[in-house]
Amino acid sequence: MPHNRRTSDPRYGNRPTMKDVAAQAGVGLKTVSRVVNGEPGVTPETEKRVLEAIEALGFRRNDSARVLRKGRTATVGLVLEDLADPFYGPLNRAVEEVARAHGALLINGSSAEDPDRERELALALCARRVDGLIVIPAGNDHRYLEPEIRAGVATVFVDRPAGGIDADVVLSDNFGGALGGVAHLIAGGHRRIGFIGDHPRIHTATERLRGYRAAMAAAGLAVAGSWVSLGSTDPDRVAAAARSMLAGPEPVTAVFAGNNRVTVTVVRVLAALERPVALVGFDDFELADLLRPGVTVVAQDPAALGRVATDRLFQRLAGAGLPPSRTELPTRLIPRGSGELPPAN
Amino acid sequence: MPHNRRTSDPRYGNRPTMKDVAAQAGVGLKTVSRVVNGEPGVTPETEKRVLEAIEALGFRRNDSARVLRKGRTATVGLVLEDLADPFYGPLNRAVEEVARAHGALLINGSSAEDPDRERELALALCARRVDGLIVIPAGNDHRYLEPEIRAGVATVFVDRPAGGIDADVVLSDNFGGALGGVAHLIAGGHRRIGFIGDHPRIHTATERLRGYRAAMAAAGLAVAGSWVSLGSTDPDRVAAAARSMLAGPEPVTAVFAGNNRVTVTVVRVLAALERPVALVGFDDFELADLLRPGVTVVAQDPAALGRVATDRLFQRLAGAGLPPSRTELPTRLIPRGSGELPPAN
Repeated sequence: MPHNRRTSDPRYGNRPTMKDVAAQAGVGLKTVSRVVNGEPGVTPETEKRVLEAIEALGFRRNDSARVLRKGRTATVGLVLEDLADPFYGPLNRAVEEVARAHGALLINGSSAEDPDRERELALALCARRVDGLIVIPAGNDHRYLEPEIRAGVATVFVDRPAGGIDADVVLSDNFGGALGGVAHLIAGGHRRIGFIGDHPRIHTATERLRGYRAAMAAAGLAVAGSWVSLGSTDPDRVAAAARSMLAGPEPVTAVFAGNNRVTVTVVRVLAALERPVALVGFDDFELADLLRPGVTVVAQDPAALGRVATDRLFQRLAGAGLPPSRTELPTRLIPRGSGELPPAN
Repeated sequence: MPHNRRTSDPRYGNRPTMKDVAAQAGVGLKTVSRVVNGEPGVTPETEKRVLEAIEALGFRRNDSARVLRKGRTATVGLVLEDLADPFYGPLNRAVEEVARAHGALLINGSSAEDPDRERELALALCARRVDGLIVIPAGNDHRYLEPEIRAGVATVFVDRPAGGIDADVVLSDNFGGALGGVAHLIAGGHRRIGFIGDHPRIHTATERLRGYRAAMAAAGLAVAGSWVSLGSTDPDRVAAAARSMLAGPEPVTAVFAGNNRVTVTVVRVLAALERPVALVGFDDFELADLLRPGVTVVAQDPAALGRVATDRLFQRLAGAGLPPSRTELPTRLIPRGSGELPPAN
């Protein structure tokens, strides 16, 4: 029987089948089934090939039958953090694409960085009977989700860990990335390096600060109190912090910016200065390479964060009885000029 | 009776009341009520003051009582277009903020620019009993929403008009903005101007093309077929289109880019050229002013689009029996250098 026999079956019209996907991807039917149902045992490369074949063929799982069979709604909820932060764009889109490849509808809502809104939204999505929930947490206490998780709502945290509960989490190596970025500045001759980050209640902010401190300590460099500033990423706050550490008797010769919102403001402050000040930013951002100098960054892979988290969610939904896991994705230093400026005297 | 009497009422704990909001904003109680309930008759300035007071005091309408009274869910749905296009960030956030100020929960989903997904998602949100729907349309036929609208789901379209139904729409002056941007290039001495835009099935793309053609015609300039390219905003497609119109016997000396995704790619292509080519882009984007030359743009106000559309939605929900309206917001030309480069010979 040729592999595409069922595509010519009138009952299915021209809709592609799993067998078509298997043939296109050059893998076995069981592998396609594993990917579609989110089961383990498929390498990332193979999964990518299968997902590309699914996309190319326009394959759609027959969801209505599935929902009837499993008592599910084929809907997944995503609690976003900030709708206007471009970092989350590729992450959100990756979640959507994986959900779509699994035949699930994705419903989002944004916490706008407010723990109360996160809770309200997550519970509202559960009340609307999502099968699973992906949360970019704003708060540090997620015990409110325990009854939902017990009731069967698969839950995966991404970008930041859950607080007070044991749940799957997928995040970047924030500590190691910041450590590497600051070590890069130190290797370039800098001794007075500033750190400007997000609110200290945010996990990524404190992890990156920890990386900064570890790099400075490893090089035997003391950190003046005026060189560290955590708080809102509001441009006025960040610009004031940058100007403050660039002035005074011990001005910094380099700045490590704790996330893309901070970096963009620091770029503006530095562009108005007469002397060159080195800059490395956590997070890549659009056009960073076209600025003069190009902005050196510690890049996360936001799409991979979203993809891995959603894969994990569908593994749980497929009934894989695995213990909660913590996945940390590596970051990548991209030198573009700003981080390679020598210290000015 | 002091205005804050009820805040000390134990039944309400310390929750601020509408009277507190009125006092803080320096307006009457009826005005606050109008804003909270989305009724007409409040100037934008006053509304802004009331919304700021609501935010400052942390005022929340008592929704459970309201839902019981009106049979509503206090949930609004937003059909997004592309989660990774930064243009929509401020629009989405404005929708969220206005919904929040009205005590409503916002649930989003993204069509990823696919009409089938838009339809699937809009109907899924209706099935989950949203009171109202804001749609950034991907498709051109919205008759599928007619039964929902008849059943009472308030629906407002934003950024692009609805197709096949008569519904509220809030959009930018796409025609006028493009016309002004191209006229600006012509005033600078350009005669051979290229246009690179989005898919011709997208309303904004064709409106902006119409503006380009009108400006060229008004100046008595013929448009060579090779100067116009519509299609996907995929960087490879856009870069190829730009390179093609910059080569050949009649190369363009200026490019008008049809949206921010196109502009960013054209900036990259032009940065690699030896001769200067002028550029005006539709949509402002982050860091446009820090590039060298700064990028001249025709700026929309995406936050205002979201705000006006959501105001309209809550006016409908408040029962204002108004006929469907079309609101067009003006655009603004921001000269930054790239659009003021003279034609190279």
